Amino acid sequence: MATHRSGLATAFTQVDVHRPRPGHSLPQAYYVSPEIYQRDIERMLMRHWICVGHASAIPEAGDYFTYELDRESVIIIRGRDGVIRALMNVCRHRGSRICYDSSGHAKGGLLICPYHAWVFTAEGALRNARMMPADFDVDAHGLRQIHLRVIEGLLFITFAEEALGLDQVTETISTSLGVYGWGTAKVIHQQSYLLDANWKLAVENQMECYHCAPSHPDYTRLHSQARPGVDDMTAAMQSRTAAQGIRIPSRDQWALEAQPGQEADYCARYAMWEGIQTGSEDGASVAPLMGQFTAFDGGTTFVYAGPVTFFIAYSDYGAIFRFTPRSVMKTELHVTWLVNETAVAGRDFDIDKVTWLWRVTNDADKQIIEQNQLGVASRFYQPGPYALPIENSTKRFTEWYLHEIDAESAA
Amino acid sequence: MATHRSGLATAFTQVDVHRPRPGHSLPQAYYVSPEIYQRDIERMLMRHWICVGHASAIPEAGDYFTYELDRESVIIIRGRDGVIRALMNVCRHRGSRICYDSSGHAKGGLLICPYHAWVFTAEGALRNARMMPADFDVDAHGLRQIHLRVIEGLLFITFAEEALGLDQVTETISTSLGVYGWGTAKVIHQQSYLLDANWKLAVENQMECYHCAPSHPDYTRLHSQARPGVDDMTAAMQSRTAAQGIRIPSRDQWALEAQPGQEADYCARYAMWEGIQTGSEDGASVAPLMGQFTAFDGGTTFVYAGPVTFFIAYSDYGAIFRFTPRSVMKTELHVTWLVNETAVAGRDFDIDKVTWLWRVTNDADKQIIEQNQLGVASRFYQPGPYALPIENSTKRFTEWYLHEIDAESAA
Amino acid sequence: MATHRSGLATAFTQVDVHRPRPGHSLPQAYYVSPEIYQRDIERMLMRHWICVGHASAIPEAGDYFTYELDRESVIIIRGRDGVIRALMNVCRHRGSRICYDSSGHAKGGLLICPYHAWVFTAEGALRNARMMPADFDVDAHGLRQIHLRVIEGLLFITFAEEALGLDQVTETISTSLGVYGWGTAKVIHQQSYLLDANWKLAVENQMECYHCAPSHPDYTRLHSQARPGVDDMTAAMQSRTAAQGIRIPSRDQWALEAQPGQEADYCARYAMWEGIQTGSEDGASVAPLMGQFTAFDGGTTFVYAGPVTFFIAYSDYGAIFRFTPRSVMKTELHVTWLVNETAVAGRDFDIDKVTWLWRVTNDADKQIIEQNQLGVASRFYQPGPYALPIENSTKRFTEWYLHEIDAESAA
Repeated sequence: MATHRSGLATAFTQVDVHRPRPGHSLPQAYYVSPEIYQRDIERMLMRHWICVGHASAIPEAGDYFTYELDRESVIIIRGRDGVIRALMNVCRHRGSRICYDSSGHAKGGLLICPYHAWVFTAEGALRNARMMPADFDVDAHGLRQIHLRVIEGLLFITFAEEALGLDQVTETISTSLGVYGWGTAKVIHQQSYLLDANWKLAVENQMECYHCAPSHPDYTRLHSQARPGVDDMTAAMQSRTAAQGIRIPSRDQWALEAQPGQEADYCARYAMWEGIQTGSEDGASVAPLMGQFTAFDGGTTFVYAGPVTFFIAYSDYGAIFRFTPRSVMKTELHVTWLVNETAVAGRDFDIDKVTWLWRVTNDADKQIIEQNQLGVASRFYQPGPYALPIENSTKRFTEWYLHEIDAESAA
Repeated sequence: MATHRSGLATAFTQVDVHRPRPGHSLPQAYYVSPEIYQRDIERMLMRHWICVGHASAIPEAGDYFTYELDRESVIIIRGRDGVIRALMNVCRHRGSRICYDSSGHAKGGLLICPYHAWVFTAEGALRNARMMPADFDVDAHGLRQIHLRVIEGLLFITFAEEALGLDQVTETISTSLGVYGWGTAKVIHQQSYLLDANWKLAVENQMECYHCAPSHPDYTRLHSQARPGVDDMTAAMQSRTAAQGIRIPSRDQWALEAQPGQEADYCARYAMWEGIQTGSEDGASVAPLMGQFTAFDGGTTFVYAGPVTFFIAYSDYGAIFRFTPRSVMKTELHVTWLVNETAVAGRDFDIDKVTWLWRVTNDADKQIIEQNQLGVASRFYQPGPYALPIENSTKRFTEWYLHEIDAESAA
Repeated sequence: MATHRSGLATAFTQVDVHRPRPGHSLPQAYYVSPEIYQRDIERMLMRHWICVGHASAIPEAGDYFTYELDRESVIIIRGRDGVIRALMNVCRHRGSRICYDSSGHAKGGLLICPYHAWVFTAEGALRNARMMPADFDVDAHGLRQIHLRVIEGLLFITFAEEALGLDQVTETISTSLGVYGWGTAKVIHQQSYLLDANWKLAVENQMECYHCAPSHPDYTRLHSQARPGVDDMTAAMQSRTAAQGIRIPSRDQWALEAQPGQEADYCARYAMWEGIQTGSEDGASVAPLMGQFTAFDGGTTFVYAGPVTFFIAYSDYGAIFRFTPRSVMKTELHVTWLVNETAVAGRDFDIDKVTWLWRVTNDADKQIIEQNQLGVASRFYQPGPYALPIENSTKRFTEWYLHEIDAESAA
């Protein structure tokens, strides 16, 4: 065999795929590495609070829905005592899922495992295990339960044994979404989008409106915050709100500004363009006013709680955005739409009209997030500079994230 | 960047995912770990005997079918000498599969590799390799062959070079399935089910009837063994068998009771309910009596041989159950139905009626096994206690398994 | 628990899956190992030249198509200066893909990233980044560019920073495909085949005609080189070529015969059977003569350049074969058909007739390559002896490959 070496070409030089650079997007590894993904799950998703839905979806004792994260399935169920709990969907016999479907009703307040018919109560206790030996300890085999808290109808869970405090989150939500009447709102529609991208790219996109003008023409036609110099419009909107006797304070305890031991939260208000009442195709009202509102103030309220759940409130409807990692390059975005509890479909609102803006916006986001994922996987990707100030929330999210997962190079 | 740490929450406590606990279901790792799966393949599947089918499927010289396991494909072929062999489906030239289809016929008793047309005999020798150099050793390039044994028409193979003995298996099958005439039975139908679950969950389910009452109402309506205290029924059934001069001894050399150096086997008989003749929708006969039977005795005979093949014999039909791991969380269940070789479809039996019970039962098993897999993957799964005695065979299977794969903690 | 060991069976003996044996096909690991695959990408694909297509596909300034390899996407685009460049499809802001589609046109000579609307020129410079801070360095954020060279209309790229020389490749292509007029030919059809096989099995198949007779009856009916002893036919063909004043020298600097620091190349000519004009269903002309040809000489010219691109030229049409690894066991074969630039579809040629032979041939190759992959994955696969001399090019390819990736055992 010849001794010369034909392949003398030097491979390209690759930038460091791990070391974050301040003010720049994250290095590649954070978007493609299975090891970092696993760390994300354990340190971010498993330790923080997640809003999994709204209490109005399970009004009766025994009503439940399930929430899946990583390899977990949680049964969110209303007990016969009216209390909503989060029970792990894992039978204590040989581990089968107990609820196969994503929502349902526990007849008679009992959850019966389909495999061997062990019977649990809607509150999680083992009621009966047929044919077990006499010395079997029934009381020691109830379903495992994780923390669940209800704030203005929003159902928050955490897998952490010792949970972060929710005092600040509660105050922020009460003085914002509470004012919009979310505590008694009702769910009218839910929709899931499966994004072929790492969950952080989805959240980073959610955090900034630098992309609104190029990617979301409809959103930009309605909302002002994609453009610079709209302070006057915001002030005018705030006056219209105050004129109704409504006060919704801005709050920022998000990301690294979270209080020690507390979950992070954030609330800010933005104006829509002159004459726009709500986030709808023509800007006109699509449902009855909610909560304390007696008129449209042309404002939108954005609330964040924890790393993966976001809320947007218009005067006549609201939406919950929940991002759930499915694998290193797959993320589910689940959206829940809310209206006034007394509103009647067909008479007071049309579901297609209420959901229109965020359906077209989510469809566009899915594409840009997925193309972002494809690009950052390249050897030629170099973390680029954030456009400040408009991408500041994204920058803050990535800094918080690096701190939470204890990235060596986070400063 | 702020110096406080917002993520103080402690993650949940997880049970040991590897250490087995006596009398309990296996720890999580055994159902989800790719490393353990690979060990399963090498130590269980590659060292034990597997019944791949019945000789009646390949009656003529040159008839063959293939069996796939892991990355292997085996050609089960009847030679021109009438002998059935197991030839590896790998050409000795550059490794191509020789038989592309799952069954077929070697014309003229020759297997011709479609790639470069090397010609092998149905007995595995290389007959001709076109255009090879003069010094090429034809005799050294026959197809590799593995052990194959025929017992009452059942085709057993093993990938082991030094195979486990089959003396006990042979005796057990001869005195049970042989009595049912399986040696001359014929295959009338085959069906595969792809289960999204680790193979051990599928076998564990096959081993116990604790789940029969909740999961298999039809099976339970026909068979008695899902209920406690049916000894009288079994005794009555045995009398009916004996009255025909038939003796089918129970044998238990299964799992850790296997004789040294011998494959494991098991035979037990159970009664169906009063008046039930066979495993059919209405309990009435669906095919001519088989083997030595001259009347229906209301009994069912269960036979196991090795870790992944199981047999059930009714007086008028039989079924072979073969479990093949496909990946760590995928398993193929393949079922073969047999009737008396002289029976004629349409006249003597209706395939839909013969196969009905085990189709509905397998459909239900698929679902419960898959939901079991989903549950054991949870961080909150804890191995639970077996319901004894009704889950004793499952317990024995897991103990045997741990011993075979040399799990450190197997006692 | 019993103390005897039932699983005494010894597993089969496996041949070494890594150590190559001279004159034999590669060991299994080279076709199934993700680690070796990654090494293949870095040492073969990323260091060698790849012909990605033909310049006639992008005639106008701003015209582009993309080429994907591993995690990379390259924009092959004609600039406003007429020069074709290879720009990495990765935005310098946060890494998004800029071109979503596999081909298109940059309007006004500008590529606008759909995410945040950064504007790049078709030559790769950053023209504008909206809303960026005043100190942002626009000039430092152009698109990254890799080497691209045009040889007789063929577009070659390499990801290597220090590229292999193309002097020899250029001479070989100029004196062969150049004579066929490829420099001014035009693309009439492109087609992709996704093969479920390692890329090396696809290239090994491309290199030899031992399989032509059994696998490609149509090809063999037209071309002579699948049969031994056709030297007379080749000499007759060469005379017919020379009679037109055309000289196409054979050249062999391929595989380990490549000049130091130069990319590998090869050119050889073969005769078709008596009376056959071109590679078509009936052997008759399917398009106008190309380049210097004034009559059909009954010859076919085969050219190789680098490890994954191959060319075949008939007197009236040509084809480019490009193999791109997609994953360890997936490979894309992309074929581009060329004719004389002045030929008009419908009048001078019928696309179905021009493409017929290589469509049926590729379809057959897809199947045999995939069955080869299945077979080599078996524990019972043993590298077999090449049929020499007819498989000599395949042997040379594997030796070159082992040398290039620095396989320890390559001698």
